[in-house]
Amino acid sequence: MDITTQTQWCGIIGNPVEHSLSPAIHNAAFQRMGLDLVYLAFRVEALGDALKGVRALGNARGFSVTIPHKVAAIPFLDEVEPTAKHIGAINTIVVEEGKLKGYNTDASGALRALKEGGALLDGHRVLILGSGGAARAIAFALATGTGIAGLTILGIEEGERQKLVKDLRDKANIPIEDGPLTLDMLRNWVPHVRTLIHCTPVGMSPRIDESCVPTNLFRPELTVMDIVYNPRETKLLQEAKAAGCRTISGLEMFLNQAVLQFELWTKQPAPADVMRRVLESRFG
Amino acid sequence: MDITTQTQWCGIIGNPVEHSLSPAIHNAAFQRMGLDLVYLAFRVEALGDALKGVRALGNARGFSVTIPHKVAAIPFLDEVEPTAKHIGAINTIVVEEGKLKGYNTDASGALRALKEGGALLDGHRVLILGSGGAARAIAFALATGTGIAGLTILGIEEGERQKLVKDLRDKANIPIEDGPLTLDMLRNWVPHVRTLIHCTPVGMSPRIDESCVPTNLFRPELTVMDIVYNPRETKLLQEAKAAGCRTISGLEMFLNQAVLQFELWTKQPAPADVMRRVLESRFG
Repeated sequence: MDITTQTQWCGIIGNPVEHSLSPAIHNAAFQRMGLDLVYLAFRVEALGDALKGVRALGNARGFSVTIPHKVAAIPFLDEVEPTAKHIGAINTIVVEEGKLKGYNTDASGALRALKEGGALLDGHRVLILGSGGAARAIAFALATGTGIAGLTILGIEEGERQKLVKDLRDKANIPIEDGPLTLDMLRNWVPHVRTLIHCTPVGMSPRIDESCVPTNLFRPELTVMDIVYNPRETKLLQEAKAAGCRTISGLEMFLNQAVLQFELWTKQPAPADVMRRVLESRFG
Repeated sequence: MDITTQTQWCGIIGNPVEHSLSPAIHNAAFQRMGLDLVYLAFRVEALGDALKGVRALGNARGFSVTIPHKVAAIPFLDEVEPTAKHIGAINTIVVEEGKLKGYNTDASGALRALKEGGALLDGHRVLILGSGGAARAIAFALATGTGIAGLTILGIEEGERQKLVKDLRDKANIPIEDGPLTLDMLRNWVPHVRTLIHCTPVGMSPRIDESCVPTNLFRPELTVMDIVYNPRETKLLQEAKAAGCRTISGLEMFLNQAVLQFELWTKQPAPADVMRRVLESRFG
């Protein structure tokens, strides 16, 4: 495409950003749709200066925000949509008339991945393993954006988990249970849920031969989603699939958060097939 | 080209920027040389925020700076090369290891255009018409970067002209003369110079049938440069050429300031032919 004085720009703001897949995915999508937009990577330390700069440099359309800036970005925005505000983190900025508005498509993207993956949500309890940023985003998306019957959170970080549970109870009207991520707790809770979402780093490359969940807890009625996307099929997902579960890979969540970013920036449907192809090509 | 996490960015910072030719010229040059660089247009009001943002957003390589920010940018830079400092204006920023360094390729570009155009400079007096930003850049480039014998500046803005003359006398060791831009003064000075450089807006589209210089003052030994590049051949240049003068169009100066920007950003020779072709295509 030809860059002109009208070309608008997007980008990822994070640190590091060298290994981000977002430039490849979004540029491919922009090109496919013939949009006059480019997407760059910005390794940012001074976040406040960067976001002031984004306001001052005309023609910016929007940004992906990643680690370590998802929480820290909020005070620099003009507006934050409610779910992102509850989560206390954003991963997306939309620039409109010089104003910066924050969204969390990690949350909405996970929800879309779950629904597209066939997870039974409404009326059923969901089990989340982990209590970090991803668990927090997904828990709020489920608790405030679906009709699930309850939510159980098992995690090893006591303080972080209790904070998440407290915040969820403040905002949502469903029963929230929690406990440490132990074999006993898994044995206790897995039989009572239809969806299990794994939000810890266990099983991520290079430690690909690890999983939190004993195989004897899987049953065909269970849907298992893993937020780890490298490897594309974790040991958890392999074993769940072998036991007859529906499985949803972290790639689906990653894809959907990007699809929803594209839609927020461009106000048009994303070419999800193109974006999926780019993503899949990066994971062999 | 494919934009990746390594792609660096440049751009023009000004207001307005909608009609800038720089994105077309520089992107064509980057592509020709296979460089992993894109060049965007930034309409900037809050200059300080924009330049702080440029520091904070990683991967920036450099910027063109245009009206109204050429003077105002200086306090926000880490370093300014000497000629630009004397001029008190920059048109180029190079970003290196997070530091912003200012240059003035309006000055060096004009000098290159004059030399390539065959103007006899060393040992001869030069006449400049006008005392605005362009006149100032060219006067300093000539007075500090060549062996000209003297400089005469004729301009209608009394205060601006006297300030320029005073600043030149402080920095350069050649005789500087000045006076109002009148027919008498032209008749007095044109016969004593080998190079006349027109730096006023007279003759610029749409008032293309105007010129400051009566045709009877032209003689074949004279080189005439016009900084006006729209139209590409002004009435001044047409008449000078008809009288047998060498002529150098504003397009050459514009081209060369861009060529020198490219070389500052990339540390490699610019594909001037490609850049010229883009420029010429915009002026029919």
